[in-house]
Amino acid sequence: MIKVVLLGSGNVAIHLAEALANEKNIDFIQRFSRSHNNDDFFDKTIPIINNTNELKSADIYIIAISDDAISAFSKQLHLNGLVVHTSGSISLNDLQCNANKGVLYPLQTFSKKQKINFKNIPIAFETEIESDLTLLETLAKTLSNHTYNIGSQKRKKLHVAAVFANNFTNHMYKIASDICKEHDISFDILKPLIQETANKLLTLSPKEAQTGPAKRNDKKVIENHLLQLNKNQKEIYNLVTNSIIDTYNSK
Amino acid sequence: MIKVVLLGSGNVAIHLAEALANEKNIDFIQRFSRSHNNDDFFDKTIPIINNTNELKSADIYIIAISDDAISAFSKQLHLNGLVVHTSGSISLNDLQCNANKGVLYPLQTFSKKQKINFKNIPIAFETEIESDLTLLETLAKTLSNHTYNIGSQKRKKLHVAAVFANNFTNHMYKIASDICKEHDISFDILKPLIQETANKLLTLSPKEAQTGPAKRNDKKVIENHLLQLNKNQKEIYNLVTNSIIDTYNSK
Repeated sequence: MIKVVLLGSGNVAIHLAEALANEKNIDFIQRFSRSHNNDDFFDKTIPIINNTNELKSADIYIIAISDDAISAFSKQLHLNGLVVHTSGSISLNDLQCNANKGVLYPLQTFSKKQKINFKNIPIAFETEIESDLTLLETLAKTLSNHTYNIGSQKRKKLHVAAVFANNFTNHMYKIASDICKEHDISFDILKPLIQETANKLLTLSPKEAQTGPAKRNDKKVIENHLLQLNKNQKEIYNLVTNSIIDTYNSK
Repeated sequence: MIKVVLLGSGNVAIHLAEALANEKNIDFIQRFSRSHNNDDFFDKTIPIINNTNELKSADIYIIAISDDAISAFSKQLHLNGLVVHTSGSISLNDLQCNANKGVLYPLQTFSKKQKINFKNIPIAFETEIESDLTLLETLAKTLSNHTYNIGSQKRKKLHVAAVFANNFTNHMYKIASDICKEHDISFDILKPLIQETANKLLTLSPKEAQTGPAKRNDKKVIENHLLQLNKNQKEIYNLVTNSIIDTYNSK
């Protein structure tokens, strides 16, 4: 059984802790948390420490803290075993400890309040040393049904792609919701459209799924839309519309 | 029973025809189609005509053709009853016929290949004359479980919001898929993230659901992302990132 220690208490750590605690094939022996908030923890039987000197011996230490803290935090750890972080954008080599290094990146958007099935979350994993790969792969496959051995360079590309697919998509929802709010229209009217936009990708590529005035290069509708937007919305509308027009007119 | 004639053969018309043909409480008496492609038609028992002189007497005529053709096409119709179009962006008054006018706007993204349950599609409807409202509302409620009486001005706002929620969202998927393709990464890795991004809206507002480097104003990750993008992707990344930063730092 793989002995695991989890370090961190943010959104990723909260959901990862729940997944680790639920797996019978994982010996989840300890959590480290500076903020030490027991309310956030799914399984209260896992011992929580707030001093790194109290860390027990484990096979894998998972550092699930904010990207910019990983390097400095890992520097103060003196551990044997495999130390991995969970970030999409940070290189494996940013881990500054003497232990063996790896990455276990769950590619999903985590919010505290939102329940999620970890088995459906794709996990990209890598290790510095080849001989650690089987151990980390076993942990990844225990947590998720979708695992990928991806190196740091490729993982960075995947992370920026994920920013478009999630962060920027969500911001498009945000602008749509702002327009609704401003004109006293229920945002609920748009929710089936939003669901269908995502569902279409199960059978169509994004290029095939596109519809609307920009794809048709329908100048009249586009001009009319621009009249109804504020400065910031207009800038985004123009840039994305032109990018869609280019996609369908240049190929 | 409401007698309905459908005019058009594009994506909206194809899905609407299927919904009309499936409803026992609707007497779907005729279709007009210039392109006359029987293969697209769900129910081959509905008579198809390609000359407007052959139009039969009906309660409601639904014009489901492209936005910029509605005005000229409606001008040549000499009908009694209620004539409605299905466009989100065209005013009720752009219907140029002498008949009573209305709008029946199904707010969804339609692709030929993609099956869809019409009952889940929000329908915004309006009529020029108050006395027609009950008739059109009855049709709308027969087709869908989510109907909204919304006037032309508000409908235009809703339409531009829908462009952000669907067209622009889908283009974010497209860019993510381009990045994956370029670096030989399967786009499938991003699909659970895309699904969850949409699902989050069932319990969170877009503002609450946001995560990522722009929300945290994490300059280091943002700089690193920009290095990995082409010119067009970079422009979109910068603009949307700054818009997200403004959202979370100004309020």
